[in-house]
Amino acid sequence: MARREFHPEDHPFGVSVGRLVNRLAALPGVGRKSAERLANHLVSCSAAEALELANAIKDVKDRVKRCQKCFNLTDSELCPICRDPRRDQTVVCVVEQPKDVTSLEAAGVFTGTYHVLGGRIAPLEGIHPGDLTIEALLKRIRDDNVKELVMATNPTLEGDGTALFISNRLEGQPVNVTRLARGIATGSVLEFANREMLADALRGRQAF
Amino acid sequence: MARREFHPEDHPFGVSVGRLVNRLAALPGVGRKSAERLANHLVSCSAAEALELANAIKDVKDRVKRCQKCFNLTDSELCPICRDPRRDQTVVCVVEQPKDVTSLEAAGVFTGTYHVLGGRIAPLEGIHPGDLTIEALLKRIRDDNVKELVMATNPTLEGDGTALFISNRLEGQPVNVTRLARGIATGSVLEFANREMLADALRGRQAF
Ligand SMILES: [Zn+2]
Ligand SMILES: [Zn+2]
Repeated sequence: MARREFHPEDHPFGVSVGRLVNRLAALPGVGRKSAERLANHLVSCSAAEALELANAIKDVKDRVKRCQKCFNLTDSELCPICRDPRRDQTVVCVVEQPKDVTSLEAAGVFTGTYHVLGGRIAPLEGIHPGDLTIEALLKRIRDDNVKELVMATNPTLEGDGTALFISNRLEGQPVNVTRLARGIATGSVLEFANREMLADALRGRQAF
Repeated sequence: MARREFHPEDHPFGVSVGRLVNRLAALPGVGRKSAERLANHLVSCSAAEALELANAIKDVKDRVKRCQKCFNLTDSELCPICRDPRRDQTVVCVVEQPKDVTSLEAAGVFTGTYHVLGGRIAPLEGIHPGDLTIEALLKRIRDDNVKELVMATNPTLEGDGTALFISNRLEGQPVNVTRLARGIATGSVLEFANREMLADALRGRQAF
């Protein structure tokens, strides 16, 4: 369905609801009809419920920053995973984005820690190794005596290239570089893989 | 998929994001995975974009009330439809809920005004005629010399019963009571009817 221009003042409930519908429809994966339904819910629900959502959004913008160690998102100096004494600091899973941490955590089989690169090397888009957190990763591998690095960049040309670049930088160092088993279809993105696929891919991780 | 208990402090991004995910997942039609995706977007997008959404939610709770004439939702004394001089005040479409106004307006063929009952008569649930805006409707019919009342209550047992109740109350008065053509499947709800179905049903409205 084509997205039609929509003016908030034309909404049958007035401009406040019209603006809310527009803001909701701008969220990823939310169409006009879902936005209407969500706005209806927010208008009709208790003030407490709606304000809790509004405040949760504000809190996230006020508090969430990057973990000082792994660059995951967090509301404290270190993210919950880096803070957790049960997580193995010597096994580090390298991902492109924080959302990949969420996906892998949902699979529930990985007991090491993460490192979030903040993207992948893509010279054509002007993204170079220096734009990612690769130097911090190399320092961390030395400082924490990391034994295993699990490459979980997206199974795309750029993701594989980034993993290879990091692997090359580690040549001669006593760190075992593995990567996720290719249960994941090449060219896809981690975010949309289901828990079972990711759990299998983690269990079957291979030497890089 | 079964909904598992989820503690915000267990979220890999920390409690702020965990709380936001929980609030989003509590919205109608938003599952856990969509909530994660929306939270990710809200964490990563500009502060301005996120705060505009938070403020739009607050605005709606602060400003939106009932139209003094038709009980539709609005942020002014009268709703945009009652204020619009091009809308016919003598043709009134009776609906159960404000969301039904949105659905009928999206069909774009009705040029009269609305009256929102606030529900339907359902004695088993303890909802009696006095709980709805029926008296205000009867007063409005007299005061505004309403010529036609289009019944657009949901095509359910209770919706039909409510329309019949109102129709009986108008016996002997010079108002023509019609109802939406039954292009709509009996037992369904207006909110989920598509624009075309509703447009047809409005065009083919029948004497009650
Ligand atoms: Zn961390
Ligand atoms: Zn009104």
